[in-house]
Amino acid sequence: MTNPDEFSLIAFIAAHCHTRDDVVLGIGDDAALLQPPAGQHLAVTTDTLNSGVHFPVATPAVDVGWKALAVNLSDLAAMGAEPAWCSLSLALPRADQRWLEGFCDGFFALARAHSVSLIGGDTTCGPLSICITICGHVPAGCALRRDQARAGDDIWVSGYPGEAAAALRLWQCGQLDISAIAANQQVEQLRQRLLRPQPRVELGQQLRKTGLSRAAVDISDGLLADVGHIAARSRLQARIYADALPLSHALECIVDKTTARHCALRGGDDYEIAFTAAADQRTAISALSSELALPLTRIGRMQPGLGVVCEGETALSGIPDGYRHFLPASYSAMNDE
Amino acid sequence: MTNPDEFSLIAFIAAHCHTRDDVVLGIGDDAALLQPPAGQHLAVTTDTLNSGVHFPVATPAVDVGWKALAVNLSDLAAMGAEPAWCSLSLALPRADQRWLEGFCDGFFALARAHSVSLIGGDTTCGPLSICITICGHVPAGCALRRDQARAGDDIWVSGYPGEAAAALRLWQCGQLDISAIAANQQVEQLRQRLLRPQPRVELGQQLRKTGLSRAAVDISDGLLADVGHIAARSRLQARIYADALPLSHALECIVDKTTARHCALRGGDDYEIAFTAAADQRTAISALSSELALPLTRIGRMQPGLGVVCEGETALSGIPDGYRHFLPASYSAMNDE
Repeated sequence: MTNPDEFSLIAFIAAHCHTRDDVVLGIGDDAALLQPPAGQHLAVTTDTLNSGVHFPVATPAVDVGWKALAVNLSDLAAMGAEPAWCSLSLALPRADQRWLEGFCDGFFALARAHSVSLIGGDTTCGPLSICITICGHVPAGCALRRDQARAGDDIWVSGYPGEAAAALRLWQCGQLDISAIAANQQVEQLRQRLLRPQPRVELGQQLRKTGLSRAAVDISDGLLADVGHIAARSRLQARIYADALPLSHALECIVDKTTARHCALRGGDDYEIAFTAAADQRTAISALSSELALPLTRIGRMQPGLGVVCEGETALSGIPDGYRHFLPASYSAMNDE
Repeated sequence: MTNPDEFSLIAFIAAHCHTRDDVVLGIGDDAALLQPPAGQHLAVTTDTLNSGVHFPVATPAVDVGWKALAVNLSDLAAMGAEPAWCSLSLALPRADQRWLEGFCDGFFALARAHSVSLIGGDTTCGPLSICITICGHVPAGCALRRDQARAGDDIWVSGYPGEAAAALRLWQCGQLDISAIAANQQVEQLRQRLLRPQPRVELGQQLRKTGLSRAAVDISDGLLADVGHIAARSRLQARIYADALPLSHALECIVDKTTARHCALRGGDDYEIAFTAAADQRTAISALSSELALPLTRIGRMQPGLGVVCEGETALSGIPDGYRHFLPASYSAMNDE
């Protein structure tokens, strides 16, 4: 297949699909037919990654495939939803068999891990872009929403935010080859965090099933920016304690403490979950952290007021507040080819 | 709003949305929450339009917005599904308020006409591209599929295929300004067919509800190519009678008869429906045609065998068979800026 057209590209992708029992009709008709489970709401989200904007142009295909699905799974995770089906729209500048094989390796490895069936989509000719819409299920009335935080709730975050932003910073400074394994173990950990985010699907579902959390958000746009969404939608103020931020050993080895905090607070591209929970749930949340082998750290508190306040942090110039498209300092200005 | 960022773009788009009762939570959280109706299958399809590939760069924004939704509605129509929700991923080279207003005018005019709620999506920075995923409902077991045709079925087509392809041909020859109303009434009719396709949603649902049709497909890739999908999936041969093709007065005024037939058979970008039905349904289908004020024309027959045979047509060079991405003669080679 040296010059595959659209139909053979679709056939190649379709050959990798596994099919869930609730897929009545998959790829190959005008639309897929799906059987939604009774008593559940459908959770639907869309995220697009454009080459040179959302990931460096030199990013390996396998990592592009993984990450494109991961950022969508992360949104479902933040709702406490169980992933089910996704569609994939892939724009490629040329029909490149080797690139597509790499992409499929990354994409379907993560899809299999979360029992997600690819049920449709299209391939088009254009600058490299991946648009995924993912559907999941959540029992009616049980989703983790942004508007359900209460005054007095603790604010928690999973994992170690800031690692992806630090990797991006190294790459921007010419100190990291995004396409190759780094010799330094800590640098490689940061690179992996940027290229292979682990969506916190199990955490989201456990928080929903146990009723431990009321409100959640994934912090893909940066911790402060995304906790700000919970504050705005819940009509409360979020107070974050900078001293409480979980900073990974790798992050602290590679950048100074002030930079590490800024990456953790404002970096973006972390696919961790920030959530709120009543103060009497601290023991239960610690137990959940152990069960999932995933750090869950209490980093603040919801209180009356508006916006986000960060205690104990000093400003650092040159790092934007969260990620904004259409503004300077996006990847688009940093094309690495 | 002279330099809107992603959040204000989303807010601008969201302000245009109307919301269906089955949208539990719309734009503004990590995912939308939707209430699927009991006893129905979900029909899901995705289509992407890239500027310069799927539409000429000079296409007015209002037409881009309309067409991006229309091509997706057309896929639901071909399944006999009732449209409900869609997500929109919009990549824009720059945040252009005027362009976005035009796009929203076209997009939401068609969304309102079909009671479709926009429930999410994203805006990103990149070459102009519109990816839409649309969800609809269809009673379990009742969808019009490509694999249900039977030997002896008539093949029917709605409307007047070929008009969009003829408009594209005029534009390719420099005889049509895609962005302006044409002085010639027939040329303007063709231009409208290219820019403002009318998805046959009502037809698809009536064919499904009445049980008149077994198999259907939308002919966006060209009549022969798409009827070929019914033949392949139903393991039959489709025999098309070129003399029976419905050619519009406008089409016959503008191009010679041989070209008109080629446009109708192979043109693509027609969002009409081809469907098969038992021969004893001819009277009922004629009645449906009158009821919908939409021409439905019998153009062929399903029979044992494989592939598609077209009777009474002579070959014409220079017009590709159906639309293929990644091949020459796509819009990408014909950028008009």
